[in-house]
Amino acid sequence: MTHLRNYARPRYPTPMSDFRPELATRIFTLASRDEGGARFWRIECPDWINVIPLTGAGEVVLVRQFRHGIGADTLEVPGGQMDPGDATPLEAARRELLEETGYAGDDWTPLGWVHPNPAILSNRCHSFLARGVRPVAPIRNDPNERTEVELAPLSEIPRLIGEGRITHGLVLNAFHWLLLSEKR
Amino acid sequence: MTHLRNYARPRYPTPMSDFRPELATRIFTLASRDEGGARFWRIECPDWINVIPLTGAGEVVLVRQFRHGIGADTLEVPGGQMDPGDATPLEAARRELLEETGYAGDDWTPLGWVHPNPAILSNRCHSFLARGVRPVAPIRNDPNERTEVELAPLSEIPRLIGEGRITHGLVLNAFHWLLLSEKR
Repeated sequence: MTHLRNYARPRYPTPMSDFRPELATRIFTLASRDEGGARFWRIECPDWINVIPLTGAGEVVLVRQFRHGIGADTLEVPGGQMDPGDATPLEAARRELLEETGYAGDDWTPLGWVHPNPAILSNRCHSFLARGVRPVAPIRNDPNERTEVELAPLSEIPRLIGEGRITHGLVLNAFHWLLLSEKR
Repeated sequence: MTHLRNYARPRYPTPMSDFRPELATRIFTLASRDEGGARFWRIECPDWINVIPLTGAGEVVLVRQFRHGIGADTLEVPGGQMDPGDATPLEAARRELLEETGYAGDDWTPLGWVHPNPAILSNRCHSFLARGVRPVAPIRNDPNERTEVELAPLSEIPRLIGEGRITHGLVLNAFHWLLLSEKR
């Protein structure tokens, strides 16, 4: 990699604890820090996970639900945030798959992780592939969510993305990781 | 697409204006709404954009900078939020490319857009490809940012992603759109 312009790095060994919590919700804590006359904000979240659940027939188990951020329904893969009771991202992924779809499986592969937005979000989002999933239980939504399951062949996913039917950036990340893993 | 379980849709023709602004920063407004005994939060942001700038030699113009969300440097493509003065996402993309890298180009292609996180973020992120970019001006950072430019061959990007050197989910989205467009 060519280093074109080597500007002096800003000195930021500033510890994360310099951020003061300002407001806490069920899903994030808003924190801020003053520096050099400017105020910087960070949205502190637990890590997130998502899962590409594949049935034995090569279908992806998708979830449709209302999303308050955009005020509309979305089509996504199952996912959510790590709960205090989840020891690992994989454990959270198994739990979310079961809760949101009623599906489960035993063949899990970690695909990769991203920073959802390192400018303002503190956390990572971990993607998994779960092969051979099958329905084993009823859906168990918490009181603030309502998920419906739809199945789509894996080969249809690029079309669903291209047509704007799957628009969630972190869901696209999961399928990107899957593409990269298939190329290896 | 097979419709497996058709749960009743929650009724949410709720207008977006039901959200009350609670706290405004330079880059987002935090808003909330009470419904059915629960409080829902939304982070309202202008749309974001990012650009894959390709030189005539097939190199991607990358940006290294400190990110307050994770308290560390990241390697990204240039991008940012739409300013009030930007008439279109493309105009914002041209501006951010020039400001953050000093590069410009005339051959632009829209790649696609995502909802960065429809659960809590209101906005979209638009990705562009800019071919044949060249350095035309000095970098002009605002007082709160400091970007350095690094060049990497496009063919090296999957490795940089696979090795965790590029971790920004929205940057991965841009490269995912580019992959999909090459397959069409």
